[in-house]
Amino acid sequence: MRMVDLILKKRQNIELTETEINWMIEQYTNEDIPDYQMSSMAMAIVFNGMTDKEKYYLTNAMVNSGDRVDLSAIEGKKVDKHSTGGVGDKTSLTLGPLVASCGAKLAKMSGRGLGHTGGTLDKLESIKGFNINVSEDDFIKQVKDIGIAIIGQTKDMCPADKKLYALRDVTGTVESIPLIASSIMSKKIAAGADTIVLDVKVGSGAFMEDIEKAKALAKAMVNIGKQFERNTTALITNMDQPLGKAVGNSLEVIEAIETLKGNGPKDFEDLCIDLAAHILLNAGIVGSYDEGVALLKEKIKSGEALNKFKDFISAQGGDATVVDDYTLLPTAKYQYEVKAKQDGFVKKMNALAIGNYAMTLGAGRLTKDASIDLAVGVLLDKKIGDDVKQGGTLAVIHSNNELTDDKLNEFYSIYKISSERVEKPKLIFDAVQ
Amino acid sequence: MRMVDLILKKRQNIELTETEINWMIEQYTNEDIPDYQMSSMAMAIVFNGMTDKEKYYLTNAMVNSGDRVDLSAIEGKKVDKHSTGGVGDKTSLTLGPLVASCGAKLAKMSGRGLGHTGGTLDKLESIKGFNINVSEDDFIKQVKDIGIAIIGQTKDMCPADKKLYALRDVTGTVESIPLIASSIMSKKIAAGADTIVLDVKVGSGAFMEDIEKAKALAKAMVNIGKQFERNTTALITNMDQPLGKAVGNSLEVIEAIETLKGNGPKDFEDLCIDLAAHILLNAGIVGSYDEGVALLKEKIKSGEALNKFKDFISAQGGDATVVDDYTLLPTAKYQYEVKAKQDGFVKKMNALAIGNYAMTLGAGRLTKDASIDLAVGVLLDKKIGDDVKQGGTLAVIHSNNELTDDKLNEFYSIYKISSERVEKPKLIFDAVQ
Repeated sequence: MRMVDLILKKRQNIELTETEINWMIEQYTNEDIPDYQMSSMAMAIVFNGMTDKEKYYLTNAMVNSGDRVDLSAIEGKKVDKHSTGGVGDKTSLTLGPLVASCGAKLAKMSGRGLGHTGGTLDKLESIKGFNINVSEDDFIKQVKDIGIAIIGQTKDMCPADKKLYALRDVTGTVESIPLIASSIMSKKIAAGADTIVLDVKVGSGAFMEDIEKAKALAKAMVNIGKQFERNTTALITNMDQPLGKAVGNSLEVIEAIETLKGNGPKDFEDLCIDLAAHILLNAGIVGSYDEGVALLKEKIKSGEALNKFKDFISAQGGDATVVDDYTLLPTAKYQYEVKAKQDGFVKKMNALAIGNYAMTLGAGRLTKDASIDLAVGVLLDKKIGDDVKQGGTLAVIHSNNELTDDKLNEFYSIYKISSERVEKPKLIFDAVQ
Repeated sequence: MRMVDLILKKRQNIELTETEINWMIEQYTNEDIPDYQMSSMAMAIVFNGMTDKEKYYLTNAMVNSGDRVDLSAIEGKKVDKHSTGGVGDKTSLTLGPLVASCGAKLAKMSGRGLGHTGGTLDKLESIKGFNINVSEDDFIKQVKDIGIAIIGQTKDMCPADKKLYALRDVTGTVESIPLIASSIMSKKIAAGADTIVLDVKVGSGAFMEDIEKAKALAKAMVNIGKQFERNTTALITNMDQPLGKAVGNSLEVIEAIETLKGNGPKDFEDLCIDLAAHILLNAGIVGSYDEGVALLKEKIKSGEALNKFKDFISAQGGDATVVDDYTLLPTAKYQYEVKAKQDGFVKKMNALAIGNYAMTLGAGRLTKDASIDLAVGVLLDKKIGDDVKQGGTLAVIHSNNELTDDKLNEFYSIYKISSERVEKPKLIFDAVQ
């Protein structure tokens, strides 16, 4: 087999076989196929796409390139959730304890990730004592005992995907639905859960800015999941503004806890409950979506969801009293109010710009080894559709450095205020299953 | 400037600027842009093509990556000819002396090339004493004196093209009209002629099997030539069967000489005269195409074209008496007649298969360092449209090894004989200027 022949086949839009895709990924992982051939193949895939079969073969080949997590020792429904990423997305922190309190088993190995704010692991580490370096045996035991564990990766999962992603990043081939879908799904399949809910974000703060493309990605991922016989659902959700009000690591932890207490921002609570209800339904824990929603609301009301969060923190060595005392979390030295300069309604707020602003405060990292400041970030008081009064607070910036007026005005310019009433945007566009 | 941004631009089908293309080719030649980015760009070009401006910028950048031949010391019209390559294509050997005998100046630096038979340099070297290693000063002087010289490359022309072509060869990006056009034209522009005639071959023995693609390539090349202010014409010609009757190095030299004597196969003579007439017309040596044809026929009839060939051979140290004594050329030990097994008409003969057959005899080379056998090859007695009689000769195979009946039958199977009359195929499909 010669890689150049496979490239020519893809270029001519002829379906590649399972044998060919397996060979390609094996040889590429072993460095027997050079990057310059793989990048040419990736660009041919950008233009000609992949069939359902090809996407499945590619995903499977990437899963087989590395280790898999074996969750078979855990009884019950093993569930997982993935978001394509957005600004202020602290969903896992709230959704995890929620579904665990309903009897689902969430065994999650996370990476750190790059971006506007830290990943789930960084956020959890803003809780004093919280340990993400847990052995695999202890990880499995914790999920068996309390239904939830979130730890750093102990396994070399999908090395082929890692290598291919790094190449795509520098060769203009990131944006490709089959390549994105197989990249995400390979990691989900290797992680071992049998029920998977995907949150595909679309809008100014998301990777996908176009709802049709987001739907195509969702369909591609659900289709791959089904070929692996995993119960897979994808929601298409709005990322034209940050999710909830908090953007920044410890600020987001507080919002996640408040939501477990029933005091969260409505959009964030709605999304958590929607995603969680799909998980419960797919896992067969409830008989209908509505039953799931009711059960989840009950778990918030009864305090069981919050208690599950406390158990989870304690099990991984963290100080669970944080849920009643937020001063135990890293706190920024300065707080600056951003005030409205006119009356009106919030018409727009570019989510990406807010994410990038938080990153410049130190909340996120651009390179893998950069350190992040867990205390800093932004609390949004007003979001799209809210009415504002001149001099009223739009947002509060939490910083460990003094900020100039220019820097504050920079944030103000992210808000577009209109004199006409603006409707609150829809949060969930569609569900694909 | 970042290469990944240029790749994304091309992927989105946005025209690249001259500055961007210059930067890309410079950095790539200097190895500051890695192969894996250039191959991804090449594949994006395969799908999105290039505008006329981009093709010109790319060609120019490749010309500027290396040396150029300076023909300014030569008075008169400097002409050049290029063929996209086919089986039995010995055109330069006949066309060169023909146009030189009419007053055009052909100063040609050739490469050796890979393929079914050797290149022009190999064919010339089958003449005893012929020297292709001529200094640049002597090369210019020879063209000034007799109007023709064909030598090996003394310059490092278009190194960017060399590097890019080698990459395209292994990344499935060879077949791309803008990339083929700029590759060919960069070498023609660097070679310095002001009148260029291109022979774009189409058919079973050519790179292009589709006449529409051949026309598109011809148009792209002519357009590039015009942007460099070179008089450029391209003919689209038939390569569904070998050109002329001889396939093999010294066999082709004999055919080229016979054509200069007025005894050549009609198709080969027609093509030489057509290409040469376009050269004379474009160079302003004649006032019309028909005048060119008449002048060229006169030069054959008068013996001036043959004398020019003899002068050319002598000037480069070769034994010019070869034109009257073909036994001075390498001759194969064995000759095998391939005989018709039925009466009828030649319907088809796959040109590529004949080329490959000649290569297996030793007439061509697959790798740069392989040696070739100048004596061997095939003489086609019958071509498409000819009538054949059972037991009559179809072709004669010249070999330095004994051939089995199986090997001879392999050649026979290349011929398709029909009981119905077959029309002789058209030789020249179109002229693009």
